[in-house]
Amino acid sequence: MELLPPQQLAFQRMLDTIRRGFERFGFLPVETPAFELSDVLLTKSGGETEKQVYFVQSSGAIKEGKAPELALRFDLTVPLARYVAQHEHQLNFPFKRYQIQRVYRGERNQKGRYREFYQCDIDVIGKDTLPLAYDAECPAIIHGIFTELAFGAFTIKINNRKLLRGLLQSFGVADDKQAAVLHEVDRLGKMPREEIIARLGGADVGMEATAASRLMDVLDAPGDPLERLGSLREMNDVFQSGLDELRRVREGAIALGIPPAQLVIDLSIVRGLDYYTGTVYETFLDDVPSLGSICSGGRYDNLAGHYTKSKLPGVGISIGITRLLSHLLESPAFASVTTTHAIVLNVDAQLSTEYAKIATELRTAGLNVEVFVGDQKLGKQFQFADKSKIPLAIVMGGNEHNAGQVKIKDLRTSMDAAQKETSVARDALVGEVKRLLGEPRSP
Amino acid sequence: MELLPPQQLAFQRMLDTIRRGFERFGFLPVETPAFELSDVLLTKSGGETEKQVYFVQSSGAIKEGKAPELALRFDLTVPLARYVAQHEHQLNFPFKRYQIQRVYRGERNQKGRYREFYQCDIDVIGKDTLPLAYDAECPAIIHGIFTELAFGAFTIKINNRKLLRGLLQSFGVADDKQAAVLHEVDRLGKMPREEIIARLGGADVGMEATAASRLMDVLDAPGDPLERLGSLREMNDVFQSGLDELRRVREGAIALGIPPAQLVIDLSIVRGLDYYTGTVYETFLDDVPSLGSICSGGRYDNLAGHYTKSKLPGVGISIGITRLLSHLLESPAFASVTTTHAIVLNVDAQLSTEYAKIATELRTAGLNVEVFVGDQKLGKQFQFADKSKIPLAIVMGGNEHNAGQVKIKDLRTSMDAAQKETSVARDALVGEVKRLLGEPRSP
Repeated sequence: MELLPPQQLAFQRMLDTIRRGFERFGFLPVETPAFELSDVLLTKSGGETEKQVYFVQSSGAIKEGKAPELALRFDLTVPLARYVAQHEHQLNFPFKRYQIQRVYRGERNQKGRYREFYQCDIDVIGKDTLPLAYDAECPAIIHGIFTELAFGAFTIKINNRKLLRGLLQSFGVADDKQAAVLHEVDRLGKMPREEIIARLGGADVGMEATAASRLMDVLDAPGDPLERLGSLREMNDVFQSGLDELRRVREGAIALGIPPAQLVIDLSIVRGLDYYTGTVYETFLDDVPSLGSICSGGRYDNLAGHYTKSKLPGVGISIGITRLLSHLLESPAFASVTTTHAIVLNVDAQLSTEYAKIATELRTAGLNVEVFVGDQKLGKQFQFADKSKIPLAIVMGGNEHNAGQVKIKDLRTSMDAAQKETSVARDALVGEVKRLLGEPRSP
Repeated sequence: MELLPPQQLAFQRMLDTIRRGFERFGFLPVETPAFELSDVLLTKSGGETEKQVYFVQSSGAIKEGKAPELALRFDLTVPLARYVAQHEHQLNFPFKRYQIQRVYRGERNQKGRYREFYQCDIDVIGKDTLPLAYDAECPAIIHGIFTELAFGAFTIKINNRKLLRGLLQSFGVADDKQAAVLHEVDRLGKMPREEIIARLGGADVGMEATAASRLMDVLDAPGDPLERLGSLREMNDVFQSGLDELRRVREGAIALGIPPAQLVIDLSIVRGLDYYTGTVYETFLDDVPSLGSICSGGRYDNLAGHYTKSKLPGVGISIGITRLLSHLLESPAFASVTTTHAIVLNVDAQLSTEYAKIATELRTAGLNVEVFVGDQKLGKQFQFADKSKIPLAIVMGGNEHNAGQVKIKDLRTSMDAAQKETSVARDALVGEVKRLLGEPRSP
């Protein structure tokens, strides 16, 4: 993935908005090195992970045929675990960190799959315990960010793994069959219900048809799921505790400002099979369901068991910024992404010092300004400005200069239409440029 | 190099300021992948570069014993050359790009030398030609950035390689001895003049003692170097052209707002021996000369001769942000770096919904706010806030709530001194917090 400058700019603006959203809730930035010790990276993984890892070696080490000591990170979770374990005594718990960095996976290049791509994670890590209120904070952060990004309507779906586990237990599903059942539950909404029930009765899972059907009734029925689940009788403690958590997380998130309609309890949300232990999240753009979940995560019991004896429970969420970028680049908002507010054209080379002064005045006022210094004809200069999507051109020839005037051309109007041109007094230029730009981004 | 969150935050604020400074002059962001094809990276290098390069391989490729196809970039110049050559027809020339990314060098770890560190480059690339005015823009950008960074007084030194080359030619220095002479010239100000003259007369260089002494008179004398150089008789065209460029670059930079005292012509500035062909720059913090040049660069004739037939002259400058970070972390400014403006304390768990509302109001007003949700005693909560360097704590117990009041504690005053406490009406909270913070960073 390599972007042209306007795309890179749009991507960067998106990342800035996300970062601001994280900081608004008190999260702090962390960056870790691109490579970790191979032993650290591969601690908890099987051979599948190793196949995806890129190892890093100097030419000297390759010649000596040594086993590679270093490897490129394949996610941001393992480096976070190592970071928290290593710096445990210098961190302030609950530790709220965000990390936006590239990760590397040694797969063959495919469409939509990159060897190098960004991940964008937040996590709150507690020491020994972590209050449930943080589970409510995650969707509130996401709500703030996606509202500001203005990619259109979106819905945050939440569920609770404890509730699912308790529910399956009470349906008599053995622990070693739970993963298989959840795998089928995950298909709800993507596959007809009868088909799922049939699969639940298949050899892999082996649920009785009536139990499978009743399970579907509980998971997938109209009406408020909390009410439906609350009315179930003789459920075990795990279920009750999960239900209570789900209720409190929803209440907490609404107290933090999420409109209830945008926070939907969806009992088919499962996420990764063994990592998450409580609350789980997924997020969808209402008008682009094909993107899949653009923001997912959940609660886990212990972050860094491989690296420290401390118990470090956490809750986190990850924004799929590569997916979002592909969406952003297709949206009309992308066409207007620009960083340079104005260009001062070179009408008369004798006035170059005056052009430099104009640019300096505008920059001092917080605007981003280009000065055209080549000796190309004015038509070529306008072409350059247009190709760069710069909204305003400042035009001052000898006549204007003698009259203490400057012309401003608005290049946002089409080239065919008569371009809007304003003539202003030289000392009113900065104010007029700001007025024309409307409210420019704060610098 | 791995930073704790407050350090990372300070570093990030520094990078944001630098980025803003680049965009103010119309530069656009570029990011390239961490790895390039090994063949591309090693095109123009000898064995020395290869020794420093980190190669990247999947475990499968290592087993097969293949030569590594990919390697991590060791600077941002080679990737820029490849990028411009590859995307030449989609770029708008003159192409102004900035790039702030990590680079990788397979050296043994030493103090101050990292295997992975940031580089921060800007370059303007022309097609066929590039006006000299861009040589004047580079120091103006640097001046804007370092003024905003407020690291103290600084001086930008400029020189011109053409001028040096013409000067040495007119002193009868053979082309193959120029590098050796320039190497000695570079010692001016770091070594007594007599010693340099002696070295110029040594076997390596072999200049006559009188010529060496006259050369020192020209390069290193009090007074305006432009005047001194202008008064020299019978100089060749290369010299005259370099002198003219140096004069015009200084004038142009001053027109762009650099105070003349901060832009010093220093004829001992040489920079890399074969890369730069015209203007060269170095920048020093006046009070921390031991940091060395924190910002260097210059003009070159052709960026990407290895990758395209187009002639792409350029001028660029690179900020030494790793050096600056070490300086930043020692400065008093670092202690006050914070991103979270206020924390809402958990005085009474019954009021948690009210605390969430307060936080949401403050966040909506653009402030970064933490809510303490654990059930620790108030003393512990203040400790957390203090350790996190959060300036203000919002305290509301049942009594305050009933009276429609909130207390704000200013934690910036010392813990020993009586902490400043303000009581305000609940609906005046946001305004009062903003007032206490003075002018908060724009969000």
